[in-house]
Amino acid sequence: MEPAARRGRPRDEQADTRIIDAALELLLDRGYDQFAVDEVAARAGVAKTTLYRRWPTKGHLIVAVVARIQDSVPVEYSGDVRADLTDYLNAITDGLNRMRQVGRPVASGDRSAGLVAEVAAAAARHADVGAAVQAMFDRRNALVLTLLEQARERGELRADADPEVLFDQLAGALYYRLLVTGRPLDAAYVDRLVAGALDGVTA
Amino acid sequence: MEPAARRGRPRDEQADTRIIDAALELLLDRGYDQFAVDEVAARAGVAKTTLYRRWPTKGHLIVAVVARIQDSVPVEYSGDVRADLTDYLNAITDGLNRMRQVGRPVASGDRSAGLVAEVAAAAARHADVGAAVQAMFDRRNALVLTLLEQARERGELRADADPEVLFDQLAGALYYRLLVTGRPLDAAYVDRLVAGALDGVTA
Repeated sequence: MEPAARRGRPRDEQADTRIIDAALELLLDRGYDQFAVDEVAARAGVAKTTLYRRWPTKGHLIVAVVARIQDSVPVEYSGDVRADLTDYLNAITDGLNRMRQVGRPVASGDRSAGLVAEVAAAAARHADVGAAVQAMFDRRNALVLTLLEQARERGELRADADPEVLFDQLAGALYYRLLVTGRPLDAAYVDRLVAGALDGVTA
Repeated sequence: MEPAARRGRPRDEQADTRIIDAALELLLDRGYDQFAVDEVAARAGVAKTTLYRRWPTKGHLIVAVVARIQDSVPVEYSGDVRADLTDYLNAITDGLNRMRQVGRPVASGDRSAGLVAEVAAAAARHADVGAAVQAMFDRRNALVLTLLEQARERGELRADADPEVLFDQLAGALYYRLLVTGRPLDAAYVDRLVAGALDGVTA
């Protein structure tokens, strides 16, 4: 045990949780542009220095919030890969639609990308935010790749199935509609997507 | 013929071309952040008012530059949908990799998204830029959807093939790697992607 850990209260895990909760709440209220790290510290009841030591920029804190949203979706192979993928992609769709509305009037009808686009842009601008975003997706997506490999081992998917490409097709279609074409995402679309990706289009 | 068209030199098409050429060149030199509309006007040798009348913001001008890059890729059905999609996606990949490097030292090794992420973020922030981006992709993607429908009519694709979903899977995978996971894009990946999307993964 390292010396710092013996000094009493468990490090910062509770503070971390309060900070992320406050950040998510503020983000949903205000949107990315009006999101101020100092206000998160105030809402969470922690010193600014505590917050900045853990997440040095707004970009880092937002990545942590997105990771929290992602981690609320469990990933486990049930023996039915079609059902598992459908459940997973519906959960992603719900999360993306929620982030799409961040900081916008609910009835605005705006289908633009909101928070996800801001995270992508911050990742492109700042190498360290980019590394955090990539690490977050690597960690999460590895869970789904493992699920697809299990399905292949059990013969649910063909032996020549390419899990990485399959996952890119599925997640990619959702993000493409969110970030690029602005098309809507819903459960009916997820059904079409899973069918298309699993069954292909050639005879 | 409308009165304005009788006043002499053909409207602004040559000026438009010079402006877009200058904008593309400046964008490749400087990147999005350092891109200044006034400097484009100077390089193109046109009045600022001419430029702003046509493209009222930096976002609008960038969308026009991206449209120019897109329009350099022809889309026509040859009778071999697998070859056509491979060619098309390789051209998109080349364009995305070029935009990925915009404003960055070539050898930086940075795989972040650069210009494409900035366009997505601008589209999310400004409704009129978002509308321009969506219109641009609607117009371009309609060409590929027509190609896929032709392939389906000729029996190259199954009758139940879903062109919209198929295209989302293909383009989506490329943009997802560019904007979200930061994974590399190359011809070998395009081959895996086309095989996965066309042939599916179920027996």
